[in-house]
Amino acid sequence: MSTDYNNMWKELGLDLDAHNALLEVLNQGYKDIYLSQENRPKSMEYFDFVMSEVHGLRIKELVDAKKEGKKVIGSYCVFVPEELIIAAGGISVGLCAGADFALEEVENYIPRNTCSLVKSAIGFKLGKVCPYLECADLVVGENTCDGKKKAYETLSEMIDDFYVMDLPQIKNNTGKELFSKEIKRFAEKLEELTGNEITADSLKKGIEIVNNKRKALYRLENLRQEKILPISGLDALLINQISFYDDPLRFTDSVNKLCDELEERIKSENSAYPSKRKRILMSGCPMAVPNWKVPFITESLDAVIVGEESCIGERGLRNPVENNSDNRSDLIENIIQRYFKIDCAVFTPNKERKDHILEMAKKYKADGVILYGLNFCQPYTIEAFSLEKELEKNNLPAIKIETDYSQEDMGQLQTRIEAFVEMI
Amino acid sequence: MSTDYNNMWKELGLDLDAHNALLEVLNQGYKDIYLSQENRPKSMEYFDFVMSEVHGLRIKELVDAKKEGKKVIGSYCVFVPEELIIAAGGISVGLCAGADFALEEVENYIPRNTCSLVKSAIGFKLGKVCPYLECADLVVGENTCDGKKKAYETLSEMIDDFYVMDLPQIKNNTGKELFSKEIKRFAEKLEELTGNEITADSLKKGIEIVNNKRKALYRLENLRQEKILPISGLDALLINQISFYDDPLRFTDSVNKLCDELEERIKSENSAYPSKRKRILMSGCPMAVPNWKVPFITESLDAVIVGEESCIGERGLRNPVENNSDNRSDLIENIIQRYFKIDCAVFTPNKERKDHILEMAKKYKADGVILYGLNFCQPYTIEAFSLEKELEKNNLPAIKIETDYSQEDMGQLQTRIEAFVEMI
Repeated sequence: MSTDYNNMWKELGLDLDAHNALLEVLNQGYKDIYLSQENRPKSMEYFDFVMSEVHGLRIKELVDAKKEGKKVIGSYCVFVPEELIIAAGGISVGLCAGADFALEEVENYIPRNTCSLVKSAIGFKLGKVCPYLECADLVVGENTCDGKKKAYETLSEMIDDFYVMDLPQIKNNTGKELFSKEIKRFAEKLEELTGNEITADSLKKGIEIVNNKRKALYRLENLRQEKILPISGLDALLINQISFYDDPLRFTDSVNKLCDELEERIKSENSAYPSKRKRILMSGCPMAVPNWKVPFITESLDAVIVGEESCIGERGLRNPVENNSDNRSDLIENIIQRYFKIDCAVFTPNKERKDHILEMAKKYKADGVILYGLNFCQPYTIEAFSLEKELEKNNLPAIKIETDYSQEDMGQLQTRIEAFVEMI
Repeated sequence: MSTDYNNMWKELGLDLDAHNALLEVLNQGYKDIYLSQENRPKSMEYFDFVMSEVHGLRIKELVDAKKEGKKVIGSYCVFVPEELIIAAGGISVGLCAGADFALEEVENYIPRNTCSLVKSAIGFKLGKVCPYLECADLVVGENTCDGKKKAYETLSEMIDDFYVMDLPQIKNNTGKELFSKEIKRFAEKLEELTGNEITADSLKKGIEIVNNKRKALYRLENLRQEKILPISGLDALLINQISFYDDPLRFTDSVNKLCDELEERIKSENSAYPSKRKRILMSGCPMAVPNWKVPFITESLDAVIVGEESCIGERGLRNPVENNSDNRSDLIENIIQRYFKIDCAVFTPNKERKDHILEMAKKYKADGVILYGLNFCQPYTIEAFSLEKELEKNNLPAIKIETDYSQEDMGQLQTRIEAFVEMI
């Protein structure tokens, strides 16, 4: 990344030394994990470029947009509707929560026994190393799990405009009502923040943009269901991760271009892998940049990840918003309908998720499922127990993995995943 | 306890060998921790008797009541309104969740990184050693924390009639509406289960019984605010614990008799302790029978626990239900009002709890506060961080303790609490 950004980062209030150190680790990790892969699709060049400029050019675009009066809205969860943000003329960005930072300091604020994702969100703020967070005009938290809900109380004291979206815990009529009110309250907040009215027209535009993005990503997911695998699981995960940061129109275009190339590769039987590999479905907690540990270990073995049942994956992608009305209320209702279907493990019961995993395993022709959980993430790690039994009942081998963002358990994970891959 | 109960236990489906082993440990622990205390109030004899018969005579009473058509409703949380249960002609009992049991087997169902209370609830079911659970006609869970919410999905599969009460996460109007609907839905469930209508008259009676129980316990709490301490913290905790199991009328009467004696003791300056001790407020997670570890360690030092800011303590006791109407809806609304005030850490934000701790510390003349958390209980352990800072701002020394039901950390806890007591 060019050093020309130093002034911009300084103006955003970043800790330049800490930030440089972070970028160095990130770049080295990217080189070791991503650029070392063989026979990658040529169109991955765009995403490599985006990653090389993830704290540079993209931040400059955001800073420039802010100068023109645009508002940047940062969030940590797929329950925050990007359609509404775009409809209000805002820019939606996912916030950094994929790496350990300032861990010791973080543990002055929340317990050691908190999941890495939550610790990371606090650590990036304390360490002043997330330019997305520092240029956000509004940061949106949501009452999903206990860890986030209670940690947001602390994080909100460090951030000027912090907004909490409430969520229900059961998907019944009462829960739906609560959710519906919260989506409408968020729309009002966005109108107030941006000074722009959310109209039927702007909603239709917002829905179209996000639907097209999801459609392009789904196109990619469909290509991963083929016998000939045109792309690695690592690359596909990266693209899903970048979808939270990049300009949505440019991103959609780039994904579609990649898919054109992948279709060609399938036709010419040009697989990303020289020999047949065990097909793994990854299911569970989200993996934010640069949390590539378990996919990297898995694909270093005789295995490939064919799909992600995750917020950064199908859980975040499925169910487009219906865009069939010219009426503002109808369109907002469509957004509510779509987001209320998200089968996050914070809901009880959560049969939809089980059904979806089984459906995905079939579609993606998975040989086995890795139930991926961050340590101390109670919703996903508890749900993994009943899922494992359910999958085995359906003759689908499954393995529960609990880990964090450290590198300490690399050897242990490798041994376990290797044994699993050999067994299936 | 008499062995005459063996048939009863067998009929309830208990595992007699495991249950006998459990009772032996319980009795030995009670002897070591409770009966070894010096200069206890004479009226503690009643509570010693109750404890000696906690799986015997009390269970026989429940079994006899069931034979007469009464229904037993078991629950794990102070959000379940005993007033409604009594109004429907039912009997409310707290369910066993205070000791490790069948731990290895439990970890086949939920992760090791789950709090002891949740593990215990599952363990007592798997081990078939909780006669309260086995004689309950209905078991009520509630969506408080992630651990309970998700573990109830597993527990509910092991229990015939398992009912989940939903809870909101924010105390705003929408949250209140959800809570209100849930209380009314629970009332309907009770009517259906018992075949009894909940009327204004039965509600008034139920509210009166529970208010009187809370009033008697509050009388006890008030006496612990005196400079002369007429009772140990351990004994007071025990009484609060027994309030969840015992017949409410007999219990209330016994607490009032004890309070008469304690008032005499205060007058005659007959303290439970020969010398002045540091006064500790215990705040945080509930302590169910026989989880006496931290109070035992604390009172073995030069300290006494003067109050419990806990579900088994003031959080469960405060705010009587207004009993000022002859109208069913009004009375149910009063119950909703009262229970919605409970300042459990699952709510966000939860300023009421902070205010209540400060108020209690003053009233009970506390020299310091132990912020007690069960390992992996995210709501309380995360809240403890901001509470600690807030208490210190108010010149109240505080210490965060995270522990479980094992005995392994006894030495470490003793060292930490001793240092804290010496420091304050």
